[in-house]
Amino acid sequence: MTTEANKKGLAGVSIGDSRLSLVDGAEGKLLYSGYRIEDLAANAIYEEVVHLLWKQRLPNTQELESLRAEIARMAEVPNAVIGQLMQYPVDANPMAVLRTAVSALALYDPDAEDNSLSANWRKASRLTGQITALTAAWPRIRKGLKPIAPRQDFNIAQNFLYMLTGEEPDSAAADAINAYMVLLTEHGMNASTFSSRVTISTGADMHSAIVSAIGTLKGPAHGGANTEAMKMFMEIGELDRVGDWFRQEIKEKGRRIMGIGHRVYRAVDPRATVLRERAEALARNSDTPKWFDIAEMLANMARQDPYFIERNLYPNVDYYSAIVLYTLKLDVDMFTPLFAMSRIAGWTAHIVEQMSDNRLIRPSVDYVGPMDLPWVALPDRN
Amino acid sequence: MTTEANKKGLAGVSIGDSRLSLVDGAEGKLLYSGYRIEDLAANAIYEEVVHLLWKQRLPNTQELESLRAEIARMAEVPNAVIGQLMQYPVDANPMAVLRTAVSALALYDPDAEDNSLSANWRKASRLTGQITALTAAWPRIRKGLKPIAPRQDFNIAQNFLYMLTGEEPDSAAADAINAYMVLLTEHGMNASTFSSRVTISTGADMHSAIVSAIGTLKGPAHGGANTEAMKMFMEIGELDRVGDWFRQEIKEKGRRIMGIGHRVYRAVDPRATVLRERAEALARNSDTPKWFDIAEMLANMARQDPYFIERNLYPNVDYYSAIVLYTLKLDVDMFTPLFAMSRIAGWTAHIVEQMSDNRLIRPSVDYVGPMDLPWVALPDRN
Repeated sequence: MTTEANKKGLAGVSIGDSRLSLVDGAEGKLLYSGYRIEDLAANAIYEEVVHLLWKQRLPNTQELESLRAEIARMAEVPNAVIGQLMQYPVDANPMAVLRTAVSALALYDPDAEDNSLSANWRKASRLTGQITALTAAWPRIRKGLKPIAPRQDFNIAQNFLYMLTGEEPDSAAADAINAYMVLLTEHGMNASTFSSRVTISTGADMHSAIVSAIGTLKGPAHGGANTEAMKMFMEIGELDRVGDWFRQEIKEKGRRIMGIGHRVYRAVDPRATVLRERAEALARNSDTPKWFDIAEMLANMARQDPYFIERNLYPNVDYYSAIVLYTLKLDVDMFTPLFAMSRIAGWTAHIVEQMSDNRLIRPSVDYVGPMDLPWVALPDRN
Repeated sequence: MTTEANKKGLAGVSIGDSRLSLVDGAEGKLLYSGYRIEDLAANAIYEEVVHLLWKQRLPNTQELESLRAEIARMAEVPNAVIGQLMQYPVDANPMAVLRTAVSALALYDPDAEDNSLSANWRKASRLTGQITALTAAWPRIRKGLKPIAPRQDFNIAQNFLYMLTGEEPDSAAADAINAYMVLLTEHGMNASTFSSRVTISTGADMHSAIVSAIGTLKGPAHGGANTEAMKMFMEIGELDRVGDWFRQEIKEKGRRIMGIGHRVYRAVDPRATVLRERAEALARNSDTPKWFDIAEMLANMARQDPYFIERNLYPNVDYYSAIVLYTLKLDVDMFTPLFAMSRIAGWTAHIVEQMSDNRLIRPSVDYVGPMDLPWVALPDRN
């Protein structure tokens, strides 16, 4: 069924059924539990999508307010974990910081070792609030600023910006962060989600599974791509350098364009389409419009190049999200933690789904080493 | 190729080639890079097996001493991480502590973000020493005792006991720990090893991959089984209760015997055979011989029961390792961290093997939720 070439990455190998998202790579279509992501990004706050993924239906007004308030109430990070964050080296990789801090949260979570369904939903709400608080806290702490506690009247996107800056969030910025979080929160059996399901499949706990997911997301072939895409735009630097850069770096040296191409999509990534519009609108109203123009010109060059055309390589979600996050003045190395805090609803939903019908995820491997070697005592070895 | 039932856990689905171990479940045979584990457990120190898995050949005398000294030199845990360990709650789950502390090691590792082969081998040596030091330190720290730095003249098994007790290790105890570590260090594409390969496949770093592996090992269907097996023996409590307990708990209530049965083995787990002999010898010379007798009587009852016979359910490595570790007076909840520190050579070898011929591990999933639902505005929802 699978060829030698694709079983290695398990490409196209289904690990079972899910009710969480349809990723149609041929059509360029993405549904979360039935709803088009274009509708969700235009109309829903992040908590609405959290409810959709956790309960398989959109909340009514009362349910939404109840979930929003619960997450805001649970978002505060224990003082002990904040104290540890303050001891971490200021130049540490922010994803290594997030991985360590989320792992430490388990040490102070009263439900950490309780694998009941009710405890898992409490942990899911708590982690959803706390991962946002940690992502907002680290860029402050490493600059010597005090972290800010969440406000109880804000939604997650507003609270993120408030905890990051200490100021009432601008509504356009909060709306852009919200849309980014909605678009990034769920995407089928991607590597980080898969790693969380492998971890929980042994009967481990939700914190362990989320920690695996954060570590897996960190790589440049996954969540690290948004940071790498922005570094690439900054390496190009100016609009009039795009042409030369594309010819020298991509065509001659054979480098890859970060943020172009995707394992699943053979059409345009529908998230990229929405984020491209957001990026353009934000850029036009910013003091740094050139980054969108550079990204756009580079994407156009790729779109007309036979190599990219033949391989169906289009900009993916990371390509334009880099422009969105940069224009919102986020630190470039915080882009991937922002991806992690956005993906938390999908990860937690997959963990609960895996537990509801669990089987240990344990593949096999073909041994190709030597057979039955005779023992040689230490003094007799060359 | 795979049936609906087994693709869910990826049972029998190969993710590629490996030169590290042959796990022959039908024959009950286990080779590490060609050598029988019976030969290795009887003759090799752990560092010899580390060399075998990392370099695909047994070391000569000089190479072995060089590797032993290197690991001992790198085993010291940075003061900052020891300081954080001292802040963790004393009743925290020891696997959550180990996961968090290993994640924190990355923040202080000069090679953490360097994915070159030479940096990865340095990190592998450092992590092999440090995970042993952390596993020895936590049971001391939570009792209010100071952690002990590694001795430069000891091998890993000796150093573990020295850092745990502060005393020169007894040679029988060091030999038993060494054999345990050798037998536990590698086992094909088990769930924790697989999770480390999923994590590294995105281009993440070795610490992230090891942290995923620790979290995955934590579950009772994987590394947590040794602790669960010992708790079961303690629940039985006395030899004359085994028969009643088996009938009531296993036959009537349908509980599983922890440590009996394995995803891969349809014959006797060859590691269990070696550890059974070790457990018996240790028990006969201890003040707590009854635990081996309880385990033995329970295994005999299962061996004669049609349910277990029909399903080829035999004691696995966790069953007798529980007796070995208990007889060595290790805390029962530290059994799984001991598994983790033993598995480090296998995990690091698999990570480097994955990186040498990498493809992003990203399976798919069958979406079975609703399709194309029309958007309903918040006020219009029931």
